[in-house]
Formats: sequence, structure tokens, C-alpha cells
Amino acid sequence: MRKLLVIGIGAGDPGQLTVEAVDALNAVDIFFVLDKGQAAADLTVARRQLCDRFIGPGRYREVLVADPPRDRVAADYPEAVRNWRDERAELLEQVIAAELGDDGLGGFLVWGDPSLYDGTVRVLDTIAARGALAIEYDVIPGISSVQALAARHRVTLNRVAGAVQITTGRRLAEGLPSGVDDVVVMLDANLTCKAYRDQEIDIYWGAYLGTEDEALVAGRLDEVVDEIERLRQDLRRRKGWIMDTYLLRRNP
Amino acid sequence: MRKLLVIGIGAGDPGQLTVEAVDALNAVDIFFVLDKGQAAADLTVARRQLCDRFIGPGRYREVLVADPPRDRVAADYPEAVRNWRDERAELLEQVIAAELGDDGLGGFLVWGDPSLYDGTVRVLDTIAARGALAIEYDVIPGISSVQALAARHRVTLNRVAGAVQITTGRRLAEGLPSGVDDVVVMLDANLTCKAYRDQEIDIYWGAYLGTEDEALVAGRLDEVVDEIERLRQDLRRRKGWIMDTYLLRRNP
Ligand SMILES: C[S@@+](CC[C@H](N)C(=O)[O-])C[C@H]1O[C@@H](n2cnc3c(N)ncnc32)[C@H](O)[C@@H]1O
Ligand SMILES: C[S@@+](CC[C@H](N)C(=O)[O-])C[C@H]1O[C@@H](n2cnc3c(N)ncnc32)[C@H](O)[C@@H]1O
Repeated sequence: MRKLLVIGIGAGDPGQLTVEAVDALNAVDIFFVLDKGQAAADLTVARRQLCDRFIGPGRYREVLVADPPRDRVAADYPEAVRNWRDERAELLEQVIAAELGDDGLGGFLVWGDPSLYDGTVRVLDTIAARGALAIEYDVIPGISSVQALAARHRVTLNRVAGAVQITTGRRLAEGLPSGVDDVVVMLDANLTCKAYRDQEIDIYWGAYLGTEDEALVAGRLDEVVDEIERLRQDLRRRKGWIMDTYLLRRNP
Repeated sequence: MRKLLVIGIGAGDPGQLTVEAVDALNAVDIFFVLDKGQAAADLTVARRQLCDRFIGPGRYREVLVADPPRDRVAADYPEAVRNWRDERAELLEQVIAAELGDDGLGGFLVWGDPSLYDGTVRVLDTIAARGALAIEYDVIPGISSVQALAARHRVTLNRVAGAVQITTGRRLAEGLPSGVDDVVVMLDANLTCKAYRDQEIDIYWGAYLGTEDEALVAGRLDEVVDEIERLRQDLRRRKGWIMDTYLLRRNP
């Protein structure tokens, strides 16, 4: 039975690691790094810096697992994601079997919190369900980018007695969710909220949260969305990629 | 200008404190403890244990700020909460002015993450807006009970490309939110999901997450909800209070 730990590492700031995550880093024999393309290079460097800081340079082992190519223009987006995840599971299973001793402890460093828009838990479930390799795993929560966003803007996500929805740019493009006035948007390549600038909405936006490139803008959507758009373009051009998230707060 | 830190301390497990939260604990001169009645005694003890562990017994100072009484049967619930918050702000302002030196650093230990169903940030905003006492504050995110729940059940909150809504028992009583199939329920004294047992829903339930009393149940709602109800009653009887949260996952 191979043991694996899925470790949430926060969304950028090394200080956001939890005490149990630091302990876990130091217990792991091999880190499996699921390569994510795009921003991957920078994020892999960030992960390595965490290991250098909390374990010690040269005192850990990592194995990169290249991602199978993903069909990003598929008509059926959820199915494309599922197929890709199955291929990924097979590949990862082989690497774990080859690299991790029978009584070894493998680790996955997950950006933010493993419970939000991250496939690691499901990949491991897929491996466990295939039944070819006996694995057992635990999850260590981490500070998500959503919490980092709220903390930096010093706002709560919900209002008194209210609800909050966490959604994606894709879904937001289909309309503002109904029945809820506080909406956090992730995975939005296009600043989809522009489409709702004629509504009474406040926005709390943040990019590269917790890193030295952190950028924050807050205000009435109609007043600040153009500024955010320009800033996003500049930042993306400069770094080659951007990671941003925002809270939309409808004013009744 | 008095500086204040709002420090998320996780939902029960001391290992969930972040590295920056531990540093913050050690920088604070005085902790202000907003007494919350009910489960307060136990949670205050838990906070003290954190300080003992991460700062050292007797090496910190705390001031208890008694909560003004709250009208729990008010017809207008949001307004009752707001009135109560204003009284609380006045009281707290007086205590801060009296106890914290002009260049002192005050701290608030917030259960879970300060961004979810916690009034500390808004109380401080109220004080700042009143303008009588000059304060400045920062927020340090913490692991919320929602993340602890997901981690212990080893599930993600969202499904592929999906959204997730975080809501309260009160709101759930008005109906399942529409347009979203994954719903996290907090602040639910009555296990309101019972009302939806005839629907195709999976539940992931957890109580006292991260503590030695932690209890977890998962399964089809119709199959496990009675067991959860019995367990909740037993646990509540035994401890005098209960803190639980759950994820409802609608199966299309
Ligand atoms: C694949 S999801 C992973 C989310 C991650 N598990 C979490 O808990 O934050 C990536 C999305 O998270 C958000 N994100 C992650 N890190 C961020 C950061 N440092 N600043 C702003 N947004 C971030 C962005 O919306 C990005 O598109
Ligand atoms: C006033 S809210 C505070 C939430 C907190 N800020 C957080 O981030 O978890 C209290 C509610 O949080 C949930 N909760 C907090 N701690 C919990 C724990 N250890 N186990 C289960 N639920 C918890 C329960 O739903 C409870 O009614």
C-alpha cells in the first residue's frame, strides 16, 4: 500500500503554508509534480522555493509527470476534462509504481486548496478505482486564492446571513447566478464581468495574490473595470501569464 | 494609529495554523477575545491552547470583551445582527482605547477563516468608520471549516467546470439554491437538509472538524440522514453544543 499526501500550499505566499503542511513536506519521500503547461514553469519554481525553504535545498526528491495534451477546444468541455484525467491517471500510476517504494510516502503540492478547481484528488480516486495499484491518500487543506483575495481586500465573502457562490468565467458568461448576490469568479481568462458593467455591482479583484507581483483593485464595476482590463493586459504581457480572481458583490 | 491583526486560526486543528499566523501570534501585544456565548467557553479554551503552544504559557495577554445581548427572535434578522454589531463596535472601541497603547499591536483570533460568517472584519470597519479611534488592520487568512470538511472527506467542493455555493441553514430552509448542484451549508442548527431527502443528493457531513471529537458521515442523503440526526443529537447532548457543516451534491 503506497501512501500519498495531497498538500495544499496556499496561493503564492510561503507564509500561507500551514504547520501541518510544513510537517508533511518534511515527511514526504518523493514529490510528484503534475506539469500544468502555461504558467507551469513559474509555479514549479515557486513550489521548489517552498521546498528549499521548509525542507532545505537538495534535501528532497521530485519527479515531474508530464501532462498528456488536452483538447481545449472540445465541444463537450466536461467530457474532454474527464478523458484527459483518465490518461493522466494511467500515466501517474505508472510513475508512482516505478518511483515510490512499497512503503514510501509520495507527495503532491497543490496550489491553493485541493478542494477548489484542482484535479489531484480525482486523479488519485481514478487510480484507486482502477485497482491496479494499491494506494491510500490524505488531503491537507491549504489557503485558497479566494481566501487570499478576501484577506487582502479585508472583506468577507458573504454578507450578513447571505450566501456566496464560487464559479468560473465560463459559467459567468452564461449569466450572473440567480438567488445569490456575492459571486467569486475563478478561471476567467477574459474578465467576463465586463458584460455586467451596467449593473450595480462592486468588484474586488486580485492578481498574483500573495506573490511580489500582487495587484489589487476594488470599486464599482462600471468605474474600475476598464482600469482592471488595462492592468491585466499589461501584467500578462510582462509575465507571459496571469492568475487572477475576483468577488462580485451585487448591490440591491 | 493602533494596529490590529485579524488572524484566522483554522477550524479546530492547531496544525492548521499557517506560518504567518504563528508569526502574527508572537507579534501581538494583546488579544481581544470577543465572547460568543454558547460554545464560547470551549472555543476560548481552544484559542488559549493555541497561544500556549505557539507563543508559550503566560507569555501573552488577553482581554475578554463581553458580547452585548443579541435579539435572536427578531423578525428582521439582518437588522438585528447589524444593531448588535454596532453596540459591539462601541464596546470594543472603548476596550481597545483603554487597553492597547498608541503604538501597540492588537490581535483577534478568528475561528476558521475571517472571510466566512464572521463579524470581526465588519466590527473593525464600523470602528474605523465612526472615526473616534484611529485604527488600521490587516487580515491573515485561515483554513475554514469548509476546507477541513472537504479535506477529511477527500472531495473537491466543485465538480468539473461546476460552481459551488456556500450558504446557511436559514437560507436552505427556503429551498435548494437553483443553478448550482454543489452546496455547502453552515450555521444550520436543524439539519435542514432532511427536508430534501426525497431528492437524489449525496451528503458529506462533518462535526467538530479537526478536534478530537471529529465525526464524519457520507453517503446518499436518504440513506444516511437519520444516522446523522441521531449522531448529532448524541454529540450535542454530550458536549452541550455542536458545530457541524456539510456538502450537498445533487446528482443529475
Ligand atoms: C486551477 S484553479 C486552482 C485554484 C486553487 N486550487 C485555489 O485554491 O486557489 C486556478 C485559478 O485560481 C485562481 N488563482 C490561483 N492562484 C491565484 C493567485 N495567486 N492570485 C489570483 N488568483 C489565483 C485563478 O482564478 C486561477 O484561474
Ligand atoms: C460563525 S460560523 C464561522 C465559520 C468560520 N469562520 C470558518 O471559516 O469555518 C460557524 C459555523 O462554521 C461551521 N464550523 C466552524 N467550525 C467547525 C468545525 N470545527 N466543524 C464543523 N463545522 C464547523 C459550522 O457550520 C458553524 O455553524
